[in-house]
Formats: sequence, C-alpha cells, structure tokens
Amino acid sequence: MALKKKPTTGMRDILPAEMEIREYVLAMIRQTYASYGFTQIETPCVEPIGNLTGGHGGENEKLIFKILKRGEKLRIDEAHEETDLVDGGLRFDLTVPLVRYFANNSASLPSPFKAMQLGNVWRADRPQRGRFRQFMQCDIDVLGEASNIAEIELILAMTTLLGKLDFNRFTIRINDRRILKGIAKFCGFPDESYDDVFIILDKMDKIGIDGVREELMDAGYAAEAVDRCIGIFGDGIVKSGIGDGPADTSESESMPADKSEPTGQKDCGYVPGAVGLDRLRSLASVLGDSLEEDVARNLEEIISVVDETRSAEFRILFDPTLVRGMSYYTGPIFEIAMDEYGGSVGGGGRYDTMVGRFLGTETPAVGFSIGFERIAMLLMERGYKLPDAPEKVAFLLDKKCTPSQVKETIAKANELRQGGATVSVLRMKKNKKFQKDQLTAEGFTDIREVFND
Amino acid sequence: MALKKKPTTGMRDILPAEMEIREYVLAMIRQTYASYGFTQIETPCVEPIGNLTGGHGGENEKLIFKILKRGEKLRIDEAHEETDLVDGGLRFDLTVPLVRYFANNSASLPSPFKAMQLGNVWRADRPQRGRFRQFMQCDIDVLGEASNIAEIELILAMTTLLGKLDFNRFTIRINDRRILKGIAKFCGFPDESYDDVFIILDKMDKIGIDGVREELMDAGYAAEAVDRCIGIFGDGIVKSGIGDGPADTSESESMPADKSEPTGQKDCGYVPGAVGLDRLRSLASVLGDSLEEDVARNLEEIISVVDETRSAEFRILFDPTLVRGMSYYTGPIFEIAMDEYGGSVGGGGRYDTMVGRFLGTETPAVGFSIGFERIAMLLMERGYKLPDAPEKVAFLLDKKCTPSQVKETIAKANELRQGGATVSVLRMKKNKKFQKDQLTAEGFTDIREVFND
Repeated sequence: MALKKKPTTGMRDILPAEMEIREYVLAMIRQTYASYGFTQIETPCVEPIGNLTGGHGGENEKLIFKILKRGEKLRIDEAHEETDLVDGGLRFDLTVPLVRYFANNSASLPSPFKAMQLGNVWRADRPQRGRFRQFMQCDIDVLGEASNIAEIELILAMTTLLGKLDFNRFTIRINDRRILKGIAKFCGFPDESYDDVFIILDKMDKIGIDGVREELMDAGYAAEAVDRCIGIFGDGIVKSGIGDGPADTSESESMPADKSEPTGQKDCGYVPGAVGLDRLRSLASVLGDSLEEDVARNLEEIISVVDETRSAEFRILFDPTLVRGMSYYTGPIFEIAMDEYGGSVGGGGRYDTMVGRFLGTETPAVGFSIGFERIAMLLMERGYKLPDAPEKVAFLLDKKCTPSQVKETIAKANELRQGGATVSVLRMKKNKKFQKDQLTAEGFTDIREVFND
Repeated sequence: MALKKKPTTGMRDILPAEMEIREYVLAMIRQTYASYGFTQIETPCVEPIGNLTGGHGGENEKLIFKILKRGEKLRIDEAHEETDLVDGGLRFDLTVPLVRYFANNSASLPSPFKAMQLGNVWRADRPQRGRFRQFMQCDIDVLGEASNIAEIELILAMTTLLGKLDFNRFTIRINDRRILKGIAKFCGFPDESYDDVFIILDKMDKIGIDGVREELMDAGYAAEAVDRCIGIFGDGIVKSGIGDGPADTSESESMPADKSEPTGQKDCGYVPGAVGLDRLRSLASVLGDSLEEDVARNLEEIISVVDETRSAEFRILFDPTLVRGMSYYTGPIFEIAMDEYGGSVGGGGRYDTMVGRFLGTETPAVGFSIGFERIAMLLMERGYKLPDAPEKVAFLLDKKCTPSQVKETIAKANELRQGGATVSVLRMKKNKKFQKDQLTAEGFTDIREVFND
C-alpha cells in the first residue's frame, strides 16, 4: 500500500541543513545551561490525561492530542464522551510534567533542584505559517529557592546562551506580578478583578494607552480607578516599551521619567545596560503601602546584579506593562524581546504557589522557557554559518576498484575521521559531474576520485 | 487538583544521573555517525494512522498508541470502530517515517542519502522489567546505494561508535537473506514456505538443532527436506553461534568446520577478526546453483573489508542461522551480540524492495538500528565514568551577603564557567552540612562558602 507522503497535518519533516542548526543550538543550550549547574531530565511525552486537564494549562488544555485507550479498556459502543475513550495525552508544555516529575522523584533530587528540559510538545492549534503542532521547548527551572539568586542565575544563563548564539542588543523586559497587583490596588480596582485588569493591561503594546482606557471603561470599572491607572501608565512609561526605543524625557505627574536614559530613536537609542531603575523607585514611592514590602528592592537587585555580571550585550528594562499570560506567576516575570524578530523569544517568571498546590508542600519555583523554534528560525534566516564545522571530504570509488583499493580508501577515510573530518566513501556514479555538484552543495569541499589504473 | 505523580503506565521519568549517560551516548552517536557522512533528520512523532497500519510494521502494528480525532471530525456516538475515531498514531519505529520522509523530500535530498535519526518511538507492549513503552531509537540508513560500500560504511560507523563507548570484544553476526533462501531451495522446501522455515530456523539459539528438526517435522515438511536442512546446520555451524564460543573443530559432512578458528571455551576462545569465511565458501559450494550468483563473494568482501579497516576490537562472524525478524530484508543482515548483555544490542540489513514498494521507484536501502536503551543501561550498570566531565564548583552565599558580594561571586563563577567548569551559585541553607553532603553526592568537588565578614 502506498504511504501518505505528507506528514501529519500541522507537523513537519526537518531537512538536514535545518537539523544542523537545530542540533547546534541544542548543543549550546545543553552546554551553557549545564555550566550554570542545571541538570537535564526527561519525562514521557505522554501524560496521564487527568494531569493535562486539571486547569493548570489555560487555553492549552483545549489543544490536547488525546490518546485512545487500548485493549479491553476501550469500549467504543458504550462511550459517549471523550473521557470514556482516552487515558493519556501528548504534553502541551514542559511545566506540568516538571511538577509531576518533581512530585514523583523529590526524594532523589537535590534542593534547590535546577532542572533543564529539552523536548517536544504538541498543541492542536489552528495551523498557520511558522507555527507547528509539534515543536521543541527548552526550559530551565529552579525548584526550592526562594531568594532572587534563582532569578539572577536563570537570567544570566539564558542571556549567556543568547550571546553565544550571536544574539546581542536584545532587551529583557522585567516586572513583578506584585507590582501589577500593587497598581491595581492603588487604583482601587476590586480584588477579584485584578486578573481581568492585567489581561487588558497586557494589550498596551497592541492597542496603546487609549485602547486600554477604552477597554477598562467598557468593562465597567469606576472612572476614577481607570483614570488613576492611565495616569500611572502615562507617556513616560508606555514609551519605554520595546520597539519604541527608550522613553522620552517628558515628565508626567505620577511618574517622572528616568533622567539617566538617553533619548533618541529606535536602534540609535539602544544602549546596553539597566534601564528604568529610577522609574521603578518612583513607582514604588507612588504606590506606597499598596505595594508589598521589599518587592521593588528585590527587583532592583535582580536588575542591577544581572546588568553588572552579564556576558552578553543586552539591556534589562523595568517595564510595568509586562504581564505575561499565565496566571500562575507570583513574583518577578521577564521576557526577551528582539528587534530582529519583533516579538518575544522567550520568557518566564516566579511561580511560588503552583508546585505547592499540586503537591501539598510549599515549593518556591522560577522558570524560563526559551523560544527554541524562533531562535533556530532566526539563525536559518540569517544564513548562520556554524562555527568549527568539520571539513567535509568525499571519496568516489570507481566501479573497477579492487577490494584492496576499497580497503586503502576506507583506511585513509578513517584516518581523516579521527582527525575530526566528516568523510563519506561513495561509489562513483555514471553522471560524475552531477554527483560532484550535489556533494559540493552539501558542503563537501574536498572530493577525491579513486580509480583502478 | 492533585496531579497523578506516577508517569503514564509503562513509561518512565529519567533522573539526572542517567540523563548524563544518555546524553553522552547520544553526543557520541551524533559525532561518530556524522563523521561517516550521515546527516541528521527528524520526522514528527505522530504519523498519519494509515502509514502505521499498512502492514509494514509486523507485530508492532498491534501496539500503536492511537490519537483521537479532534473537533468536528470526532463523532463519538456514530463511531463503531477505532478507525472511526482516530486519525494519527505515535510511530512504533523510525523506518516507516524514514520511507515517508524520503518520498516527501526526495527532491531536496542527495543520492545516496545517508540519514541519521535519533528519536523516541512508542509501543503499547505488555510492561515488563527493563522494557518501556516509550524508548529511544537511533538509526542510520543509506538510501540509494546498491553496492556493498553501504553495508561496509554502516558497519564501520556503528562499530567505531561502540569502540568509542568502551565496548569491545563484541561479535557481529552476519548472514544474507539470499543464503537462507538458497538453503531452503537446496533442501527442497516449497517456495511459499520459505518465510515460515526461516521463522523456525531463527529459534536455533533457543531450542537447538533437535528442536528445529522437531518443529519442521511438526509443520509437515517432507522428511527429506528436513534432513538436508539439519545436515547443513550440523554441529559445526550451530556451535558457531554466540554465547557458545567459536565452533569446535568436529567436521560434519556438508559443512567442514573452519580450521583457522581457535577452539576453547567462552571468552578464552574469543579472538577478534573475521570468522567463518571458510564455512561461507564451503556452504556456497554445497549450495551451488541454489544460491544466487555473487552473494557469497559480496558477503565475503563485506566481512574482510570490515575486518581489515575496523577501529574497534570485535569479531565479524558469518552465521547462517541468523534470520532477523522483519521479512522486508533482501540481502545482507547483521546483528551485534555482546556477552555482557546476552542478547542483541543492535542490528540491521539491506531492504532493497521496501522503499520501491511504497514509492513506486526502486531504491536500494540498508539500515542499522543500535539498541540505544540497552547500551545506556549497560553503561549505567558498569558505573561508567564520563570522560572529560567538567569540574563542578558550588558557591554558597550566606544570608547576610551584600549585593556587591553577590556580584563578585557571580563574576567569579562566570570566569570559572568560561574556563569550562560547571558552577552553581546557591544560597547557604540553615543545615549547611546536609547541603554540602548533597552537593558532594551530586559531584561537586569544590564547595566555597561566602560570608559577609
């Protein structure tokens, strides 16, 4: 029977040239994260279905590839719902499996546990250009460390990685969920509406300050609260967002702009460093008691330690408009933005209550997920040349070569391989020119012909 | 809601220490196979269900994890059979996906195409000790090369790999499907029964020559054919199987033992080299016209070239009792046996008609699959120490450390990281002794405490 040639809808085959880039990036990830003390772990791609539908995956829970029960457990004629038919599903992220893993193996794990996970996840999203239903995620998490040394080391690990991959002049946007809460409290939004307010604030990038005001009003919040909120996110801060260069220097009443920042246009205004510390301090003083103690100092420490110990060229920007989607974050949150890409290429944050809610024992946690697929795509688009790629040598054996010539050629090839080269020993084809062109296109720079003279 | 802590039935979590070994083996596989000119590819873990149930997967087709249709396509109340419910499945091997991949992308691939695949496969096998329902496969295949240079380079690549992983004194059993056919023809078994006869012959290791005779008789074959067959697989050859050491020197009428082989017991009798060439030659002369032309010469060339160009210590043994399960093999077949393990740790062979049957265009092919899980398990059991493991340094920061001490410590850590060390910067715990013991158990040999004096 003929096979269906196309891969499963929304998934894709990866060609050798792209694999080379991907494997290079993965090797750099393993090496860099390992140097920061993260140890690699692995969980099965299939999770018990209940773990995926427990409400911790947000929208992703609607996108699960579910796995049919097998054997006697499957009773199709008696089934009325999906739950009657399935007992597992493909994981949609690496966080839920990590928490399960931690629960299952905590007795064998050190504290803090610094985990690195590289693995595929699956989401039955509507297929669209550049987004696939199977994709790699690369996460690092620190479980069991309450202090900000976890955030600092995590951010340094991932920025060092980006630097090694030749990404520079990117921006880390950083905020703290508790600052968002402080703002909502200060403005007078009702407690139970905080998450909804944050969802609207998160659209600042797209709909602007006027759009946010409109949505807040439409949602029925008190005009006074909305006005206070808009006052806080006045020009000074909004313009500090990515893509607009640093803030201009016009001052707003509630939020004096940071005088230390350079003015200027996109790119020209890019200066690596810590940005927005003055703004953070003045926001804290505006919020006063509405902000939990120590939150601003903690965030400032993260920003300044990261800035002063970094090994890549980037800026770390306090951005009070950063929300991040998942509601499980409890403390500092961060995201990497790259002009080259125009969007986030990774993000993470502290989620101190999630593990405890699952396991019953409180376990502080910070995690970061790099956008592996985007990073690999950007390198492909750049035509990135892998550093230290081995020399590629091909031997073409003529048909009439004797077995002893074959032996000699292979012995020579092995010698070159031991010296680090990639060597392919091949039969010479009738259309030798085409064969050599193809090899050249594959990167073989040294093609040797062997004849029986 | 509480998570189910245990992984999906039959699957497992992998702890950091094991991951280290696995990643090391994978890195060696990538590096070694790449040096032989194999290029890595990847296919989705999910295949269209029809590709998995087309009859090419043998028994594995009964073990598929099937994936439920989604959205409107799923009509549970109208469903009566599994096929009404599913549209995909998790791949059970890497061969079916390779053939699909080749069909889908052949225009972008060189000829011959030397593919390397490292990926998980899934089989809903009955759970048993040491066998899991998700496991890694690592395959290399050469598509589009009819000559034995494909077998030779494939065998050299995988034996070089085993040597690098400190496996030596293993045995490659090698045979050719066409020799088995020649034997069946010579003995006078009916054409259509060849595969059944091979299945019985394959049990030689387990049930011995008398068991084979009995099963053949029970299956109703003519006594004359059975007698001729038993004559061929007389003592001389049967004892050449693995686990019994080399053959003894007693001669049988149809199959003179190879005088060049040493006698002796298991292990003591192990001599690296080519074994059984005389036996191959005499078997060929006994079979005469029953054997296709050039088969014996071709096999002898593979054996002798591999033997004389190998970079690891092993023997390559002509073993006419080797059958290999899958019926798609058409030419040379081979398997690696290790005394240490007592079973096969990998195998492969030529399958010249399979790709053509799928695609319509003839494409000769040879493949080899190494038993990754067994290799990793053997290394774990040996307590294998990874060569060139980086030094592991931990800094413990006392609670009272100032931000500038934190910065200094991290700067120092980064310096060590750039020098190749693994460094973890941690907060000092109240129970410092326990913390240090744990770090020592993790392999940290250099633990430095930082206080605010």
